[in-house]
Amino acid sequence: MSRDLLETFPNPAPERDYVIEHVSPEFTSVCPKTGQPDFATIAFRYIPDQLCVELKSLKLYYVSYRNEGIFYEAVINRILDDLVATLSPRYASVEGEFAVRGGLSSTVTAEYRQE
Amino acid sequence: MSRDLLETFPNPAPERDYVIEHVSPEFTSVCPKTGQPDFATIAFRYIPDQLCVELKSLKLYYVSYRNEGIFYEAVINRILDDLVATLSPRYASVEGEFAVRGGLSSTVTAEYRQE
Amino acid sequence: MSRDLLETFPNPAPERDYVIEHVSPEFTSVCPKTGQPDFATIAFRYIPDQLCVELKSLKLYYVSYRNEGIFYEAVINRILDDLVATLSPRYASVEGEFAVRGGLSSTVTAEYRQE
Amino acid sequence: MSRDLLETFPNPAPERDYVIEHVSPEFTSVCPKTGQPDFATIAFRYIPDQLCVELKSLKLYYVSYRNEGIFYEAVINRILDDLVATLSPRYASVEGEFAVRGGLSSTVTAEYRQE
Amino acid sequence: MSRDLLETFPNPAPERDYVIEHVSPEFTSVCPKTGQPDFATIAFRYIPDQLCVELKSLKLYYVSYRNEGIFYEAVINRILDDLVATLSPRYASVEGEFAVRGGLSSTVTAEYRQE
Amino acid sequence: MSRDLLETFPNPAPERDYVIEHVSPEFTSVCPKTGQPDFATIAFRYIPDQLCVELKSLKLYYVSYRNEGIFYEAVINRILDDLVATLSPRYASVEGEFAVRGGLSSTVTAEYRQE
Amino acid sequence: MSRDLLETFPNPAPERDYVIEHVSPEFTSVCPKTGQPDFATIAFRYIPDQLCVELKSLKLYYVSYRNEGIFYEAVINRILDDLVATLSPRYASVEGEFAVRGGLSSTVTAEYRQE
Amino acid sequence: MSRDLLETFPNPAPERDYVIEHVSPEFTSVCPKTGQPDFATIAFRYIPDQLCVELKSLKLYYVSYRNEGIFYEAVINRILDDLVATLSPRYASVEGEFAVRGGLSSTVTAEYRQE
Amino acid sequence: MSRDLLETFPNPAPERDYVIEHVSPEFTSVCPKTGQPDFATIAFRYIPDQLCVELKSLKLYYVSYRNEGIFYEAVINRILDDLVATLSPRYASVEGEFAVRGGLSSTVTAEYRQE
Amino acid sequence: MSRDLLETFPNPAPERDYVIEHVSPEFTSVCPKTGQPDFATIAFRYIPDQLCVELKSLKLYYVSYRNEGIFYEAVINRILDDLVATLSPRYASVEGEFAVRGGLSSTVTAEYRQE
Repeated sequence: MSRDLLETFPNPAPERDYVIEHVSPEFTSVCPKTGQPDFATIAFRYIPDQLCVELKSLKLYYVSYRNEGIFYEAVINRILDDLVATLSPRYASVEGEFAVRGGLSSTVTAEYRQE
Repeated sequence: MSRDLLETFPNPAPERDYVIEHVSPEFTSVCPKTGQPDFATIAFRYIPDQLCVELKSLKLYYVSYRNEGIFYEAVINRILDDLVATLSPRYASVEGEFAVRGGLSSTVTAEYRQE
Repeated sequence: MSRDLLETFPNPAPERDYVIEHVSPEFTSVCPKTGQPDFATIAFRYIPDQLCVELKSLKLYYVSYRNEGIFYEAVINRILDDLVATLSPRYASVEGEFAVRGGLSSTVTAEYRQE
Repeated sequence: MSRDLLETFPNPAPERDYVIEHVSPEFTSVCPKTGQPDFATIAFRYIPDQLCVELKSLKLYYVSYRNEGIFYEAVINRILDDLVATLSPRYASVEGEFAVRGGLSSTVTAEYRQE
Repeated sequence: MSRDLLETFPNPAPERDYVIEHVSPEFTSVCPKTGQPDFATIAFRYIPDQLCVELKSLKLYYVSYRNEGIFYEAVINRILDDLVATLSPRYASVEGEFAVRGGLSSTVTAEYRQE
Repeated sequence: MSRDLLETFPNPAPERDYVIEHVSPEFTSVCPKTGQPDFATIAFRYIPDQLCVELKSLKLYYVSYRNEGIFYEAVINRILDDLVATLSPRYASVEGEFAVRGGLSSTVTAEYRQE
Repeated sequence: MSRDLLETFPNPAPERDYVIEHVSPEFTSVCPKTGQPDFATIAFRYIPDQLCVELKSLKLYYVSYRNEGIFYEAVINRILDDLVATLSPRYASVEGEFAVRGGLSSTVTAEYRQE
Repeated sequence: MSRDLLETFPNPAPERDYVIEHVSPEFTSVCPKTGQPDFATIAFRYIPDQLCVELKSLKLYYVSYRNEGIFYEAVINRILDDLVATLSPRYASVEGEFAVRGGLSSTVTAEYRQE
Repeated sequence: MSRDLLETFPNPAPERDYVIEHVSPEFTSVCPKTGQPDFATIAFRYIPDQLCVELKSLKLYYVSYRNEGIFYEAVINRILDDLVATLSPRYASVEGEFAVRGGLSSTVTAEYRQE
Repeated sequence: MSRDLLETFPNPAPERDYVIEHVSPEFTSVCPKTGQPDFATIAFRYIPDQLCVELKSLKLYYVSYRNEGIFYEAVINRILDDLVATLSPRYASVEGEFAVRGGLSSTVTAEYRQE
């Protein structure tokens, strides 16, 4: 879960605001209360400034949550914090759709805007 | 149907406005007119302030409606009142999609904004 | 097709603006030109003021169109007029999706806002 | 509900066994118990022998059920009997999917094979 | 959960083998281990002999499971036994699709053939 | 392709702004370059002023394009011009979804607002 | 509607029974009764013997029905006859799904087996 | 990955052949070649003899693969072997749908029949 | 990848702002890092000024990327630049949905507005 | 297009007949007539004997068709021949769904059974 896993490359079109979205249906972490695995689809959308996230490093960053105990709300805010710190984007959002637990499915969405 | 069933935990990111949604396709209550069961999918969305709702307690709160006689419109407004009173959220909405009765399906949606 | 068929009950939460939707996929009337049946799904959405429409009476009101000859555009405006007159809602809309005739499907939508 | 409404035309390819299906999502009759309308999608499939059913007459035959009180099981068997008597087909089946009543949807299917 | 709730009426076409299916997406019982509600869609298909099941009584029979503690496998076999004992059908099957529990959804299917 | 084919009837509710939509999945014309048929679904939406378009005449108007050579962009603008000239509506839009040609599908949408 | 439009090429694998399917959602002809266009999706499946049908010629063959008056049942049997006469296949079937007319959609399916 | 995790309970209807299916969309293991996670939906279907598998133990058994390096083909055959050894069922099948890798998705299915 | 491949024709309705969309599910290029093919669906939407893009030339322009090594973000910005330079449109957007790589799917969207 | 690209590994369960399916939605080759690209989804299903196909080598084998001119029917029979020659499976099938050309989509399916 270290943000050091994230790698970047220069935005090929920094003169223009445009949107990049990466969707991973293979996110898994561990519930800190029950010790059982949680599963989610994570969608990351951003408007790059000077940097874009390298796709494979984003995957490895997500994989690093695999055996960590962390709640839904904390997962999404932590991913957003790490990506914003790494990319300094003009805009960013992270949305996680978590699989059914106790008959309820949950979605958590957070966003960031450069000031 | 007591709001005392609802438990909370501290919002891990109170410095940021973000949205949490919990969807339960397993809500059931009883029609006060006919005595027959009603079924609904309930979606609760909110922007937390200092408190988040604990998932399992939300489920048990919904289960407490199982044998109560209550109309559609009252169900949704009551759930919203209870969750707002418990969480003091910045924003909250409750949407219930009720199964077909007499050839008609019904959806009731109410929302709350912190002033 | 008499609006007298519509029954009401007091809005359980008049202090709040909220939305109620009833969808009936079983509406049928008769084409005044050909004498052949028409079929539609009718969606009625409203923000109640002091009164809500009783579900069974709404069904019976729709059933009363079964053998009446009336055009699509008139059906939707008439239903809206009758429901507004009966409920004095803060907002109301009626949308009818009519089945394919002559290779064309049609949708007619009208709305009302309390002034 | 008279089978006299059904009209026929000569099968253009009687030397070959082939299948014709007509699906009507606009069937409606009346429940003899409650007096309320029932709705169904009726699928008629057959292998013609010397006669095919004329499409418009099939529609008018279905429309003739509009204000008749008749149970699901009787509807399907009656339609099959009328079509078999009129067409003397090599094979025929009638399937009716009836809309939700009391939270249950129903399908009734009957078939006939020439001996 | 008494099979006495089931009512019948005479098969209108006993001279023909035909299939009747009733699907209820509103079945709920209680898990005997956890005390929490279970939810299922139950499909009952049969070829009637002398008797058909009356639709409203079937609904009330399903509702009688609402507060009973019973496992998935027992639910399906019990419903099949009760319907076979009541209807003496030529063929019958019961299929239950149970909602997700612990990340797993389950389907149980049993059938009966008159000998 | 003559707009004279279009017939009208008086708007039954001219005191209210409401929306009528007619969708035809059966539009076909001819590509002026290749001579091969083109196929489209045409959606016409409008807010009537004093006149509504008669459904059957709209169908016949579309059928009149069947053997005419005309490009996608011209089809949509021509239909909009003809309907606006005939109906003098408060608002109108025409959207055409054209079937795949050379691996590309195309949609053309134009709208008109009364000034 | 001449079968002379159909062109062939040698089957590249005549030593093996395998299945080729071509689906055209763009078939249109004219109803001989009303003079109005009919629309269908035509699926042709076959096991080639020595010859395969050339794709573009199959398209042109279908286009040749565009302004011909012919009934559904005749369309399908005629297409099958023409393709069997041209290809002498080991097996062939033609299935046409015709668009809604008078509230009914129709499917006609015929097949051929080499003896 | 020990089959000792699997627990059983007595089949409540051993006199009848019936089918039980448990579907888990949350299976994950590790690719032994790349060290990266694999994801699959596992469907287990069986006809019980004297024993049924307890649902929660099945979940924990699947969870035990979480950090094991094992190929697709071996996963499915190993799960089938373990469940057959534990349950001695009359019939059993295991089907795994594995998520896209290198642009290819894979499904592996194995079954067992009691002799 | 030369913009010279793009051909134009005069906008048939330059007096009106309207929208044209061309969607190609058959875009493929090569990943410059791995040398393996990438696949995408490209949607181009624009409001023409004096010129429209000719459909076949757009296809050939896309085909010219087939064996070029280029990253997702660069593909979308390059296509937008080329189309804007060729058409001088009032508005344009390019959206690319790229197929799953390493368990992640990606979408890149850029737009242009005439000043 | 050399079958030498295909690599194998030993079947981990040769004592049992079981089915492996690999689906690639990213197949592309070139039409030998027009020189334009063709696109297909290829599904390969087999029952292994002593050998399984290695997933990455299968992908590279498919990629080798990228710039080859070859007809649909030949593609499918060639892939089946190469995979059968490499794997000597107990059963194998190859199904290709080719994208729309000239308004027609095509599917070609061939299978092999060990004698």
